[in-house]
Amino acid sequence: MAYDIGIDLGGTNMKAVAMDQDGTIKLQHKIPTEAEKGREHVISRIAESVLEMKDSLDARIATVGVTVPGVVETEKGIVILLPNFPHQWKGINLKEEIEKRIELPVHLLNDARAATYGEKKYGAARAFDSFFYLTIGTGIGGGIVHDGELILGKKGAAGELGHQVIEPNGRLCGCGNRGCLETVASGSAITTAAIGFIKQGIPTLMRDMTEGDLTKVTPELITSAALQGDRSALFVLDQAATHICIVIRNMIASMNPEAVVIGGGVSNSSLLLDMIREKIDEKEILFPDSIGRIEIRKADFNDYGGAIGVAAWAGHQQRKSSIYRDVHLT
Amino acid sequence: MAYDIGIDLGGTNMKAVAMDQDGTIKLQHKIPTEAEKGREHVISRIAESVLEMKDSLDARIATVGVTVPGVVETEKGIVILLPNFPHQWKGINLKEEIEKRIELPVHLLNDARAATYGEKKYGAARAFDSFFYLTIGTGIGGGIVHDGELILGKKGAAGELGHQVIEPNGRLCGCGNRGCLETVASGSAITTAAIGFIKQGIPTLMRDMTEGDLTKVTPELITSAALQGDRSALFVLDQAATHICIVIRNMIASMNPEAVVIGGGVSNSSLLLDMIREKIDEKEILFPDSIGRIEIRKADFNDYGGAIGVAAWAGHQQRKSSIYRDVHLT
Repeated sequence: MAYDIGIDLGGTNMKAVAMDQDGTIKLQHKIPTEAEKGREHVISRIAESVLEMKDSLDARIATVGVTVPGVVETEKGIVILLPNFPHQWKGINLKEEIEKRIELPVHLLNDARAATYGEKKYGAARAFDSFFYLTIGTGIGGGIVHDGELILGKKGAAGELGHQVIEPNGRLCGCGNRGCLETVASGSAITTAAIGFIKQGIPTLMRDMTEGDLTKVTPELITSAALQGDRSALFVLDQAATHICIVIRNMIASMNPEAVVIGGGVSNSSLLLDMIREKIDEKEILFPDSIGRIEIRKADFNDYGGAIGVAAWAGHQQRKSSIYRDVHLT
Repeated sequence: MAYDIGIDLGGTNMKAVAMDQDGTIKLQHKIPTEAEKGREHVISRIAESVLEMKDSLDARIATVGVTVPGVVETEKGIVILLPNFPHQWKGINLKEEIEKRIELPVHLLNDARAATYGEKKYGAARAFDSFFYLTIGTGIGGGIVHDGELILGKKGAAGELGHQVIEPNGRLCGCGNRGCLETVASGSAITTAAIGFIKQGIPTLMRDMTEGDLTKVTPELITSAALQGDRSALFVLDQAATHICIVIRNMIASMNPEAVVIGGGVSNSSLLLDMIREKIDEKEILFPDSIGRIEIRKADFNDYGGAIGVAAWAGHQQRKSSIYRDVHLT
């Protein structure tokens, strides 16, 4: 039996799974990334995680997948953009750097695209050949599957749905543009909006729940207040849902997919999803009587979705290239 | 030698080409559609066009492609939406209806998707495996090519880029939603905007050029005034270009394609394209230093782009299915 290892590299933590080829998780762990200690340190920690798992399993490892929380040129394995890490990563061939240390084939993929593939292979999107995935966390990531395969684009940036434009003259986004979905519907955006209500002195449960400490305002707290009927909290989430529906609508017009899968911390309670479903049913759809309705599903995986997805994807890439090699050798 | 015939079915005219498998046009003609005379009449005219071409060529016809100015479920050949035709077309199996009359294999495709395929096969997008096409005419159509193939979507509506949302609370669109690109950047939209300027009494060359007859305001007239430096006309086109750039930006974020090809009557003068290029260079791009710039190309084909594209596509579909059949028979 051979296993695939998936490492989900985050700014704070690194999550790892070892999985068999049916998607059964044999091992999993989470360690701090310690990104502040620099590139060499982070790469060594990835390599050590892999080698420790290999030792514990005492079995053959077929491939290793590693997510990148930014843009990566997947085929070459070169990091193009890693916005939330200190130190310079741009231009680094992270694939080769890791392979050198572990002597196993490594495949890199953006973290949200990895989670997308995980949902396709083992999660909420198993039944769909065309869908897109949105993860609503601190930021907003995404991925697109067409004909059962991930779309990566010219430089690996396909699926950056958090950067569709919602308000052309809106707030400046980390990407350099204005009014991206991320600036109006991410965890950070709704937290900022909720703090705005509290600061304005509008009566809201959220003020009582934070006891005057605005750092306690989180998407979870906002959701909890909304579930208790707090009008300000409901308004904040409703605005986010409205904006997410514009991107869903745009994706229906461009890809006409079967489904959208929504994951990420902000969608943990089903409140946001219910709001989105209601809005889509109300109006946010193109030619509904003609092209039918889009399925809206909650992601199956959460914390380990990226690690599971990238393990599955690395296995898939490796087997695809072996088949190709076999065909061309015979 | 076998030929493919392409018929571009429009609300006013029906354009037809007969093409060899290298894309050389052997015959072409244009006749009125006479849509007002009803479904049977239109279908007969399509069939007669094909049979006349077959007679003139005195050669084998391999396939016939027919465009539909609406949404069509391509595999089944069923019309889903045909908004600008009188009489009921929805649910009609147009593929079978035509095949019955001409005894040749027929393939249906949305008109803008057909033009997209034409640009890929023989036009401005020959060098690109991933690009999208926008046709700015009375309305706005589009198409997406990924990995060298058209994306059609669950029900054939993929590529309806004129229905991406630009102004969530904007003008009502024919599709039932508000603020679609089509409502702010199509030929109709810019004509309406220009008439608005004239009616408001703002000094503009366009008033003189129309001699008081507002029905003379067309995208061509607006472009001509803009090229003479008329500020109102320039403003109207600049607004359209700004809105088109939002969709280009959204497509970069979702598909990260190599190029965009722009066609349609409104882009005939290169003024609109120059405006779009300038805006994209200025700012409308995601992570420009990382993922590079998108190529902006003018479509090679114009009037007969749909007919050429659908002939090429029908040939491609037919040969794909023959290869599939051969593989499965041997």
